[in-house]
Order: sequence, then structure tokens, then C-alpha cells
Amino acid sequence: MIRVAVVGARGRMGSHVVEAVRSASDMELTESLDAGDDIKQISKDNTDVVVEFTVPAVSLGNVLALIEQGVDVVVGTTGWDDDKLEQVREALSHAPRADQAVFIAPNFAISAVLADYFAAKAAKYFESAEVIELHHPDKVDAPSGTALHTARAIAQARQEAGMPAMPDNTQSDGGSRGQVVDGVHVHAVRLRGLNAHEEVLLGNAGEQLSIRADSFDRISFMPGVLLAVRTLAGGGHAGLTVGLDAFLDL
Amino acid sequence: MIRVAVVGARGRMGSHVVEAVRSASDMELTESLDAGDDIKQISKDNTDVVVEFTVPAVSLGNVLALIEQGVDVVVGTTGWDDDKLEQVREALSHAPRADQAVFIAPNFAISAVLADYFAAKAAKYFESAEVIELHHPDKVDAPSGTALHTARAIAQARQEAGMPAMPDNTQSDGGSRGQVVDGVHVHAVRLRGLNAHEEVLLGNAGEQLSIRADSFDRISFMPGVLLAVRTLAGGGHAGLTVGLDAFLDL
Amino acid sequence: MIRVAVVGARGRMGSHVVEAVRSASDMELTESLDAGDDIKQISKDNTDVVVEFTVPAVSLGNVLALIEQGVDVVVGTTGWDDDKLEQVREALSHAPRADQAVFIAPNFAISAVLADYFAAKAAKYFESAEVIELHHPDKVDAPSGTALHTARAIAQARQEAGMPAMPDNTQSDGGSRGQVVDGVHVHAVRLRGLNAHEEVLLGNAGEQLSIRADSFDRISFMPGVLLAVRTLAGGGHAGLTVGLDAFLDL
Amino acid sequence: MIRVAVVGARGRMGSHVVEAVRSASDMELTESLDAGDDIKQISKDNTDVVVEFTVPAVSLGNVLALIEQGVDVVVGTTGWDDDKLEQVREALSHAPRADQAVFIAPNFAISAVLADYFAAKAAKYFESAEVIELHHPDKVDAPSGTALHTARAIAQARQEAGMPAMPDNTQSDGGSRGQVVDGVHVHAVRLRGLNAHEEVLLGNAGEQLSIRADSFDRISFMPGVLLAVRTLAGGGHAGLTVGLDAFLDL
Repeated sequence: MIRVAVVGARGRMGSHVVEAVRSASDMELTESLDAGDDIKQISKDNTDVVVEFTVPAVSLGNVLALIEQGVDVVVGTTGWDDDKLEQVREALSHAPRADQAVFIAPNFAISAVLADYFAAKAAKYFESAEVIELHHPDKVDAPSGTALHTARAIAQARQEAGMPAMPDNTQSDGGSRGQVVDGVHVHAVRLRGLNAHEEVLLGNAGEQLSIRADSFDRISFMPGVLLAVRTLAGGGHAGLTVGLDAFLDL
Repeated sequence: MIRVAVVGARGRMGSHVVEAVRSASDMELTESLDAGDDIKQISKDNTDVVVEFTVPAVSLGNVLALIEQGVDVVVGTTGWDDDKLEQVREALSHAPRADQAVFIAPNFAISAVLADYFAAKAAKYFESAEVIELHHPDKVDAPSGTALHTARAIAQARQEAGMPAMPDNTQSDGGSRGQVVDGVHVHAVRLRGLNAHEEVLLGNAGEQLSIRADSFDRISFMPGVLLAVRTLAGGGHAGLTVGLDAFLDL
Repeated sequence: MIRVAVVGARGRMGSHVVEAVRSASDMELTESLDAGDDIKQISKDNTDVVVEFTVPAVSLGNVLALIEQGVDVVVGTTGWDDDKLEQVREALSHAPRADQAVFIAPNFAISAVLADYFAAKAAKYFESAEVIELHHPDKVDAPSGTALHTARAIAQARQEAGMPAMPDNTQSDGGSRGQVVDGVHVHAVRLRGLNAHEEVLLGNAGEQLSIRADSFDRISFMPGVLLAVRTLAGGGHAGLTVGLDAFLDL
Repeated sequence: MIRVAVVGARGRMGSHVVEAVRSASDMELTESLDAGDDIKQISKDNTDVVVEFTVPAVSLGNVLALIEQGVDVVVGTTGWDDDKLEQVREALSHAPRADQAVFIAPNFAISAVLADYFAAKAAKYFESAEVIELHHPDKVDAPSGTALHTARAIAQARQEAGMPAMPDNTQSDGGSRGQVVDGVHVHAVRLRGLNAHEEVLLGNAGEQLSIRADSFDRISFMPGVLLAVRTLAGGGHAGLTVGLDAFLDL
């Protein structure tokens, strides 16, 4: 039985995590904390792994405190930069337990993580590749961070394989060809009814490969969160790990 | 038996038309002309309907000559503007036969014509609508003429219904949101392996309607050409008609 | 201001209707009833249109009572057969108001209603047509009622146009070709994560038309419900009407 | 410069291979043979790699003769069974060159090979998975061999991961749920206009991953053929190799 605590338990994501942990037959929920609660209630005496889903302003502080408490941490809060990651690594270097682990993921949706990974793997075998992301119209940034990541991974794979620029004989367009990210065209659709979706199209003469990830609901993050909890509980991942693909068998 | 002649019979489209007419059990091929042949070989004595698929520079001359010969004409050549269309109407007004007909279509692919028509019909029932067109990378213009037409038809339908602008909270984008045509976002993908494709996405809270037309090959124009030939041969369409939707039962 | 009452107001659909009516700037919510409440609280003195979303066992009784109260009724409850519909028509024939109207729809999702309608319109222009429906795995029936309806409408359109059977040279299959409904192949996918989706594929040599409706959430029924309320309130639909397409401008 | 000969050079596939080799800047075409030509014209003196695209009845004989001639062989002809493969292995064991190589692939379309591979990799991370294949209506078998292979690979991946059966509460269906291959539902669509297409849908609560391969034309096999030629020419693959995924960097 993996003893799991949740920090940010009343938030939109955290409340789903509480539910998911309760439903998992190999986990028990030890603590459900939110703003105002004392994070020191969580310790290695009562908890193996903590799931932290709060806001960027408090997440680093929570993680550092939890490292001192001797527990492993799965972090879903966004807003991590190199400086913050370095502080986590530093704290882990003198953590109470030698094999203590922190895992941070920008995206826990397994479909999105796999789509991104498969697109990069496939990229060097196709003459053309473009990315279309589709989201609800309330989203403020375009394109999505995931689409940018995918486009850059495709570009890098093509470069490493020594591929030329993609064929494109367009002589005039009024913006319809989208944003060019490291040579990869990225298109962003905003449509009422959608949530978060990404499609990568790869083409050769006579053939196309399409890889699409649809996230209809934030509950789609739960399998990824539970996978991360189980992976940390299983040991062997001491230190800081970033990105769910590190925990997938690919 | 409909007596059909083809002008431009050795061209990329014309050669398909020759084949299609030969395969149609209700048609017989009377003349197959191309550059250098005398168009006056075609007359109402030997032909009911002519299919004209040549190039913009000669098409108007061909059509005017064929009107004088007393035959109906189905035109697939592109490049028609208001002035040229007016010359055709004028010629038809003193044509040998009172019920003589000319039909000109910018696109004979039934799937594309229907997608365009359905998108316009549906537009006023959805908060959001965007157009994605996808073509081979040798195409010089972006977006396609068909996509522009579709976007304008959607915009017009929304305006006539008194609808507000589509929801879009995007605060920053580097071009990923595409080209805005009368308020409708249009995205153009160029991918080796594709031919000519268009998808219209329409969304309301909790639902999406997608209408997609794929043209894999120019042979896809043949059902539309034969439909036009049969419609003219059936009579009742004296004068000039533009656009295949006029001959569809919608 | 349209005065709207909701019967079944605490149900899964009814609670969305209460919300939707409250958000509509041209409607006011007059009564929210559920099991145990007296339906006679609703009358033409306080209400123009009632939305009834309950269960098949009580819906007919509710509708008959509401007809006696002199109000128009929009019904979203399922389970209507010819006998029940006849009872509604009979009751309407001696209703308090001469122009009283009842509207019953098996599906209020505009995307699904339009997809069904467009597929039937397009059917006679394509050699081949097949239907794929995709739902969550808890659904007990396969294929969906909507997919059956679409397949039958396609078959009828083809028959009326005198079309031959679709081309299919399959010599052996172990069930992969799906269920044949009036000559139209229907495929049912069950996948965790999906809600209710239907795609119609239509093909000619060299081209394909795809029409797809996605219902991600039951909130997708609200635009259709509000459209029905407004249409009844606008008058001119005395008697019983079945099916949302009757109220769409197609 | 890789010296390449083609056997079956006037066939549908072979003629494309001749063209592809001629267009490749790192290859030169040495021999183009077809039925009636003497295969002994090809030898290690004039050729490095032979591409063999003929018919099942003569392919084994060709391959055995080419092994004796001391050249590497890329085989695209279908119809290989365990007995034939064993004869190739046996011939290779006493071939003129110690590092001689034969490569046989049932499918050279990189999109199809990758889709199959990615689907198997992803399978264990999703509750549900189904396969839809779509082909032209002249195809005699359903489902396609590729779809069967994909379904079996998904089933095996799930079994190895100890996963339970997929959720499916269907209580009645008239065949719409398709063919069940090792627990995986497979659906086959036959539509005029299509060529060869396969889509794998994988679902978890709130998310879907879709992987689709479209082969529009047999020219789509050429990148895979050239990749195999280059890989054999590069050395290090002595003996018999089956399946293009062996030569992809995955």
C-alpha cells in the first residue's frame, strides 16, 4: 500500500487527485492539505509520496519543505524555470533520505506526452510535418506550450538527421500558413466546445501519418499522476526528474 | 443517348473527361478536339453538350464559338471574371437556339461543393467556426480559393443571422491563429502526400460539427462533370449558370 | 421575455436547462418543478413554454397535464412510440388554446441533427457511404439510435434516387464489416474517454466527404432546447412536431 | 554510389522503384529485369543491392538465384511463409559473401509501419483500444493483414502488462461492434475513393490518442524501399531480416 498525501487538495486538479488516490486499490490517502494547513503534518512516518498541485507562487516553497520532511514528491503545478529546478536539485542533494525523489511534469496527459514523443520519433522519416493545436476560446496564449514543444522536437529531429527544409512553394499568403517555429508550421484553432487537442501531420509522397491527442477533461491527467506516484514509490529514481516520458516504457 | 464532345481532350482534365464520357452508358463521344483542331467541327448536328477544359487564355473564345455553333457547353477551365461572364451572357442572348445553356463551375468535386454548402447552412447555429485547408506543397497560393469562398459564406451567414463575433480570448500569438477572412480564421497546411482537402470545424459548448472534403485525384471531378452534362441535356437551364450547387438537389 | 418553466428541474438534463434559461437574456424562469411538485402550479397565467426532461414513465402524464394547463411544451424525455404520440395529438385537438404546440425531439444536439440531415442530402451523390458511431463503453446498445436513423435515411435517399447497391468485393470477413442496416454498413466503437460521436463517410472515385458530430457533454443539448423554446414562443407551430430539423432553416 | 538492380522492373511496383532509384542522388541503376530476362546478368561485379518486386510464384526462385550471385536483396513481393523463409536462411548460410543480406517486408509504407509500432507501444497505457481500417471496395479480404497485425500487437502488449479486458457494457448489437481479434475490436470500412488507411483509437477517462496511417498511392512505398537499400548497402545486417521496423531508429 502506497501512502499518498495531496497538497492543494481542494483545487481543481487536487480534488481529482484525492478521488483518484481513494479509488486506487494500491494506495491509501494519508493527508489532504490546502492553503492554511501546516505542510509539516506530512512526514516520512505517515507518507511515502506527496502529490503537489497548487499555484506557481507557493509550489517551490512546498516542494522544498516536503524534501525536508523526507518524502518523495510528484509536482503538477506549472511555472518551473531553470532557477527553481536548480533549487530543488540543491535541496535534494542534502535530503534526509539518500534516495529521495522529486518528479515534475508540465503535462500529465499520457495521450499528449505520447503524441509529442511519437511525433519526434517519426519526424526524420517524412518530408513534411506540421502541427495543429485546437483549444477552447478562453485560452489566452497561442500556440499552446505543448505545440511549441512538439514543433521544436520535430525540428531538432530533422536537424540531427541532416534533413533539408520542408517543401513549400507558397508564393503568397495572408497569414494562413500559421506560425513558423524552427521551420515547423504551427496552427492554432480556437473553438467553443473543445478543450485541449493537438494533431501532428507528417507526409511523404503518397502517404500521411497523423498523430492526435485529445484531452476532453482534466480527469485525463489522473492516469499519469498515479503512474508517477507508483514509479517513485517503486524506487530507483533518486533526484529530480522532469517530464512524464521519463517514466514511460518507450 | 447524349451526344458529347470534348474540347481540350488531350489535357490532364480533358483526357479524364474523354474516358468518363466513354464509360457512361447514357452518353456517346462525338468529337475530341485539342489545340490546332477546328472547333467548328462541333455543331448541333453532331453534338448536344460540349465539355470545355482548356486554359484561361483560350477558353472564352472557345465558349463564344461553341455558342454560335448552337450547342450547350459545360466549362471547367478556370480564370473567369465578371467581364468574361458578361460576354458569355451577351452571346447567349442571341444564340441560335432559344434555350441554349452554358454552365461554368470553379470546382466540380461534389464533396467540395457540398462541404462548402453545408458549412454555410450550419454556420448560424454555432458560436465558433474555423476553416483548415490542406494541400500538396507545390501549390503557390494560400489559402485556397475554395477555403476563401467557404470562409466568406460562413461570415455572410453569421452576419445575416445577426450573430456577434466569435469568442476568442487570445492575447498573444505569433501568427499561429492564421488568416482572418471576414472574421473567420483560415489555416493552410502544406504537406507532401496530400492533394486538395478542406475541413470546416463548427463548435458550441459541448459539441462540434466537422465537415471535411478530400480530393485525392482529379478523377474526383468526373461525377460533377457528368452531372452537369446530364443536367444541361435534360433542358430547362437556358442561359448562364455558375457553380455546381445550382444543379444539386439541396 | 419568454416565460419558461422546467419540469424535471433537478435531473441531469433539467438542471442544465434551468441554468441555460437563467442565462438567456430573452427568457425568465417561472417554475422549477421535480418529482413531488404539483404540475398545476404551471399555467398560461405564469408560463409560455415548459421544458419537460423527466423519465419515460411519467413524461406522457406530464405532457397531457401541461396541455390542459394551456401552455406550450418542449419535451426532451425519450421513450416515445406511435401510441403515446397519438395521445398527445388527441389531447392537443381539444386544448384550451387553438394554437397550442408540443415539440418532442429524440436528440437536441444541433451537430448531430445537422450531421444526420446533411448525410441524407449528400447520399445520392456518392457511390459509397458508411456510418461509424463512437461512444463511451458504458452504453448498453450498439449501434446508437442516431446511427440507425442516419443509416436508414442514407438508404432511403439512395433508393429514391434509384441507385444500385454500394460496391463491395469483400469475399471473407469475420465480422469486421459491421452491421448492415438497409444496405448501409454501420460500425460501433466503444472507447473510454469518449461520450457520443458519429461520423458518416461518403466516397466517389478520387474523393471523400466526411461529416462528423461530436457531443462531448450534455450541455451540448442546450442550444437546441433554447431554439425550440424560442420557436414555440414565436408561434405558428400549433399541434405536435417531432424532430429538431423541423425547426432548423435548412 | 550504391549500385542497384531491379527485378520485376516493368511491374506496377517495380516501375516505381526504377524511377525512385534513378532519382536518388546516392544510387545508380545497373539492371532492370523482368519476366524472360536472365537473372544472372546481375552479379556482385555490377550490383550491390537488388530490389525484387515480382509475384509470389517466382519470388523465392529469384531470391535464391540472387543469393548465389553474391548480391544483397530487398524483397517487396508478398506471400512468404515460414517454409520459404527457412529456405532463404539456409541459402544465406552458404552464400558467396559472409556478410550477405536479404531483407523482406510485408509493408514498405513508413506511415503504416510506424502506426503499427506506436500503437503497440502505447497500448498498455490506455483502458480501451480499437482498430479501424478503411480500403477501396475492390479489396477481397477484410480486415486487412495490417489491421490484424496491429490488433494482435495491441493484445500482446496488454497481456504482457497484465491488463484486464477492455470495458464494454454492450448488451445487444447486430454485428456493429466488429470483429474481435484477441480481445481487440477491428472494424473494416470499404469506400470508393479510398486506397489503404488504418486508424488506431486508444482511450482513457477524459483523453484519446489517435494514430492514423494513410496510403494514398503505391508511391508511398518508395521511401521505405530506398531506406532498405541504403541500410543493406551500409552493411551490418548479414542474414535474413523481416519487417521494416527493424531498420527504423525507434
